[in-house]
Amino acid sequence: MNLSAYLKQRQTLVNHALERYLPPPHSVPGRIHEAMRYSVLGEGKRIRPVLALAACEAAGGKPADALHAACALELIHAYSLVHDDLPAMDDDDVRRGKPSCHKKFGEALGILTGDALLSYAFDLLTRANHDASVHLRVIREVAEAVGTKGMVGGQVADISIPKSKLDSRAMEFINARKTGALISGSVRVGALLGRATPAAYSALRRYGDRVGLVFQLVDDLLDKDGAVMLQGKEEVWRRAQRLTQEAVAAVKPLGPRAEPLKELARFILNRSY
Amino acid sequence: MNLSAYLKQRQTLVNHALERYLPPPHSVPGRIHEAMRYSVLGEGKRIRPVLALAACEAAGGKPADALHAACALELIHAYSLVHDDLPAMDDDDVRRGKPSCHKKFGEALGILTGDALLSYAFDLLTRANHDASVHLRVIREVAEAVGTKGMVGGQVADISIPKSKLDSRAMEFINARKTGALISGSVRVGALLGRATPAAYSALRRYGDRVGLVFQLVDDLLDKDGAVMLQGKEEVWRRAQRLTQEAVAAVKPLGPRAEPLKELARFILNRSY
Repeated sequence: MNLSAYLKQRQTLVNHALERYLPPPHSVPGRIHEAMRYSVLGEGKRIRPVLALAACEAAGGKPADALHAACALELIHAYSLVHDDLPAMDDDDVRRGKPSCHKKFGEALGILTGDALLSYAFDLLTRANHDASVHLRVIREVAEAVGTKGMVGGQVADISIPKSKLDSRAMEFINARKTGALISGSVRVGALLGRATPAAYSALRRYGDRVGLVFQLVDDLLDKDGAVMLQGKEEVWRRAQRLTQEAVAAVKPLGPRAEPLKELARFILNRSY
Repeated sequence: MNLSAYLKQRQTLVNHALERYLPPPHSVPGRIHEAMRYSVLGEGKRIRPVLALAACEAAGGKPADALHAACALELIHAYSLVHDDLPAMDDDDVRRGKPSCHKKFGEALGILTGDALLSYAFDLLTRANHDASVHLRVIREVAEAVGTKGMVGGQVADISIPKSKLDSRAMEFINARKTGALISGSVRVGALLGRATPAAYSALRRYGDRVGLVFQLVDDLLDKDGAVMLQGKEEVWRRAQRLTQEAVAAVKPLGPRAEPLKELARFILNRSY
């Protein structure tokens, strides 16, 4: 398969859906709808939504089955960036080559835009026409992935543990949660919406856990941060390769439908080079 | 009925449930679980959960049917206070007689604690043993009540519209959303979980809309702010009284089961004196 054509097609699908689902920019109160669109639309690789769509297909579903949820995952990713960029957090003025949300709209609106994106993600997760019990499992997966056992927990550990006390166990804790939880959650959400059999769900979960960790390890390699400082570049790279092989092997039993997931795992690994 | 005994019994029920549902203070990562508990437990009238429980009963359900959701509503209320108190928002150092969350735990943790409370509220809303389709309607109601059509929308309007341009229409917009949406949402959520008939649901919705507005009008009377500045104290008070009468009349057809709701409407009105 041609990954770059596949990626482009999926990113376009997601971008059009985001454009459609987000409240119109001039609807009341306009300023926050503008800020939400500013923080979500435009640049962005849409890795989480693309993984959700691919997992849905690998489980036997159609991309449309996971499209609302895929967009919700992107809104949650955007919310985490908007809050991360705030002065009290990472204090970043620039995001994806343009002023970060609070730089453009002010700090109060930065806080509220993150809040609105998170709330709207859960709203979106109740839409679409699925069996209510599937919706409910999806919402629970997402709520866990973003809470203190997931994303927020990783951020808290990241800002709380002094650099001098960062050992590989603490690093692993942060990595698995700060980025990994939403990445692996995206795969599980796609699997649920594709109505995966228990065996397929379990294969996809194994895939998602590994890809989530690889994603963060590669981030560390790119930033020369985290695990890289402790274990050295070569060791981290070997580990990321091994995890990627395991991820690819995990979805092999799903046959040709899992082809995109295998390519995506390799793509996530090779982002660094 | 004896409202103050009723209130006390319900507040105790909610407080014990919150204590049980919130992650233990020392579970990893401990600091945020401590901050979540700090921001939720202790003081607080628990108006939103008590309304949800009372609406559930008025619809024919048992309080236990709405207990998870009632606690989720209180977590959302707490999240909104934690973010409202941040320096970039209202910059309040004190909340309920003790240091506000960011004063006690730092600004970064203040932001993350609000995020965690909001996320955990949606997590809680997926728990309990209801029909999945009822859960889903409840989650949608809550997501709408907290999003840009509700609470966040009201806050945005509140910080965006200059005082000089505040007319009664703008005031109404802010009031209906900033506080009203979650109050009336609490009543609707309770009605749904009590499996209200369509007629009962519609009566409870009318009740909730009015009580939500009264709540904010009384806040304005207490703060000598908002509507009071524009319309004068007497006019606002008359309006709040009329709305309370309408709320009480709306639930009359539900019979004795709605007695607590009537008392609660009067209690909300009379908070000011």
